Amino acid sequence: MRESELFFTSSLPKFSFDQCLLIYDRRLLKQCGKWIQHFPHAYGVQSGERLKDLTFFSEHVHKLLRKSSSIAPKDLTVVGFGGGSVGDFAGFFASVFKRGVRFEQVPSTWLAALDSAHGGKTALNVQGFKNQIGTFYPASKVHLVREVLQELNEKRFREAWPEAVKVALLQGPELLRKVSRADDSARLWKLLPQLIEAKLRVVRLDPEEKSGVRHLLNLGHTLGHVIESELGLAHGLAIGYGTRFALQWSEVRFDFPLSKYESELRGLPSASDLRKVLGRLKNVRRALNEDKKKSGRDQVRFIFLKDAGRSEIESVGLDQILAEVLRQQE
Amino acid sequence: MRESELFFTSSLPKFSFDQCLLIYDRRLLKQCGKWIQHFPHAYGVQSGERLKDLTFFSEHVHKLLRKSSSIAPKDLTVVGFGGGSVGDFAGFFASVFKRGVRFEQVPSTWLAALDSAHGGKTALNVQGFKNQIGTFYPASKVHLVREVLQELNEKRFREAWPEAVKVALLQGPELLRKVSRADDSARLWKLLPQLIEAKLRVVRLDPEEKSGVRHLLNLGHTLGHVIESELGLAHGLAIGYGTRFALQWSEVRFDFPLSKYESELRGLPSASDLRKVLGRLKNVRRALNEDKKKSGRDQVRFIFLKDAGRSEIESVGLDQILAEVLRQQE
Repeated sequence: MRESELFFTSSLPKFSFDQCLLIYDRRLLKQCGKWIQHFPHAYGVQSGERLKDLTFFSEHVHKLLRKSSSIAPKDLTVVGFGGGSVGDFAGFFASVFKRGVRFEQVPSTWLAALDSAHGGKTALNVQGFKNQIGTFYPASKVHLVREVLQELNEKRFREAWPEAVKVALLQGPELLRKVSRADDSARLWKLLPQLIEAKLRVVRLDPEEKSGVRHLLNLGHTLGHVIESELGLAHGLAIGYGTRFALQWSEVRFDFPLSKYESELRGLPSASDLRKVLGRLKNVRRALNEDKKKSGRDQVRFIFLKDAGRSEIESVGLDQILAEVLRQQE
Repeated sequence: MRESELFFTSSLPKFSFDQCLLIYDRRLLKQCGKWIQHFPHAYGVQSGERLKDLTFFSEHVHKLLRKSSSIAPKDLTVVGFGGGSVGDFAGFFASVFKRGVRFEQVPSTWLAALDSAHGGKTALNVQGFKNQIGTFYPASKVHLVREVLQELNEKRFREAWPEAVKVALLQGPELLRKVSRADDSARLWKLLPQLIEAKLRVVRLDPEEKSGVRHLLNLGHTLGHVIESELGLAHGLAIGYGTRFALQWSEVRFDFPLSKYESELRGLPSASDLRKVLGRLKNVRRALNEDKKKSGRDQVRFIFLKDAGRSEIESVGLDQILAEVLRQQE
């Protein structure tokens, strides 16, 4: 799998605008309308899971076909401008339109800039089942734009912090220390190249998820997904809780030195916040069961840490997870 | 792009049936029902362009998701059993389901066995626009089955013969001579490995249609598509007319020695049949215009032959094609 070229810029980049088909989150019109107007072929979408619903894909494609009809496929670049759902949608579209056209991304959220815009995964949902359809199709270029991330997303920075902590936990103590100090978006911006590289190091070992190594990036996601779907929390925050849960389990199971790192985990929700959230969960078994069904496995591959930078994937049963949820509730 | 392994067998092959999701043309139930019943996870479809309509893809995927829910994605093989539309549909599905699962093909028609099952192109249609969505995803194995092709498709053999002539024209005089003698399905069966290899030789030079060499396989398709859509002829026959047209144009434009090869072109419609068909065409300009719009080019890349095995791609204008249609009508 080819790798994306990364561009770190202070303001929105120039393109050969008339050969691009821009797919953008409509909510960006207010702050970035002037830049969006440079694109003669632009398609505004409403971001969110509905955009990723395969049911509506055909209609979208029909409209995108019209929008781009005057550009020869070999000259066409699809540009995705938005957060995770826009990236997933635009990337999947680019990967199958005319059997694949050029694709570039301008992530507009911290979560996308840190995580989803890198590694080439695209995805659509099938009647409520998430990410059942997709491709591995890295953008040829990913543009990280300071004015978009820093100025527009200060508020949502806290939703992304846990994802930065997660990837730093996989990488090792040094990056973890840096992330713990990156408590505003200006500081996170400076760390962005290292955080992206930390993710890509894992991706490179297993770009198409064949050996299972890439699964490491799911640290915190097993329970995170349950919390996200049960309580409707933002993805980044839910992953924060899931990561805290994984670390506390790792502490008892693999002697992860949690107390040693406590001050470096400021980006995660606290132990007592997690306890409260766990107390609100009602259908953990059902939610985990759904996840299990999708993977076709009887066991869930759970990511543990022995230390920062030392991970362990173990197959665990549903009952083991449930028992651990009960233990951590107390 | 990886290449498919080819298996030539006399009867329908064995699979690890319980790890397969069979997608089959329902019309095959009558003759091959016993074999189809071996598959606990099987999904019958009605072949044709409607199957390839992106509008219905979401529903199909939802059903296929249920059918295959007990098989872990890493163990799953999608098996496509049918002609061109079934192969296109099943191949596209396999290429995007869970970001790509194993795919094998058992072509049930001569056209699929000769052509569409090889080279990795998959495709769906978007509201009447053909093959706008797709992937390059060669089956890991293609099973060519004598009892399916020879016994079930004797009648439809004549629809496939022009496609064999086309690929032989690209390859050279020797294969062309052999194809001209392959006037029944038993003889064509014996030539099948050489004909597939002739196609793959072109594909290998340009697997993902980047340099344009692969476009050579469109010999006869420019006018063939017009005839197919205007007069509703079977694809193979229409390509036969289109190939005859291309050769007659090549004769005046590039001195293609048509009369020398006349006896070896028995697989194509005759010059007088072509004249009649050209006389029935009404909207050549409109049909060509649609094709042109799709490619985003002002000119059409037309495949000419200087001799068998010596081709020439030239950009021609719409008016040039129309003038040549008129000339050949006379």
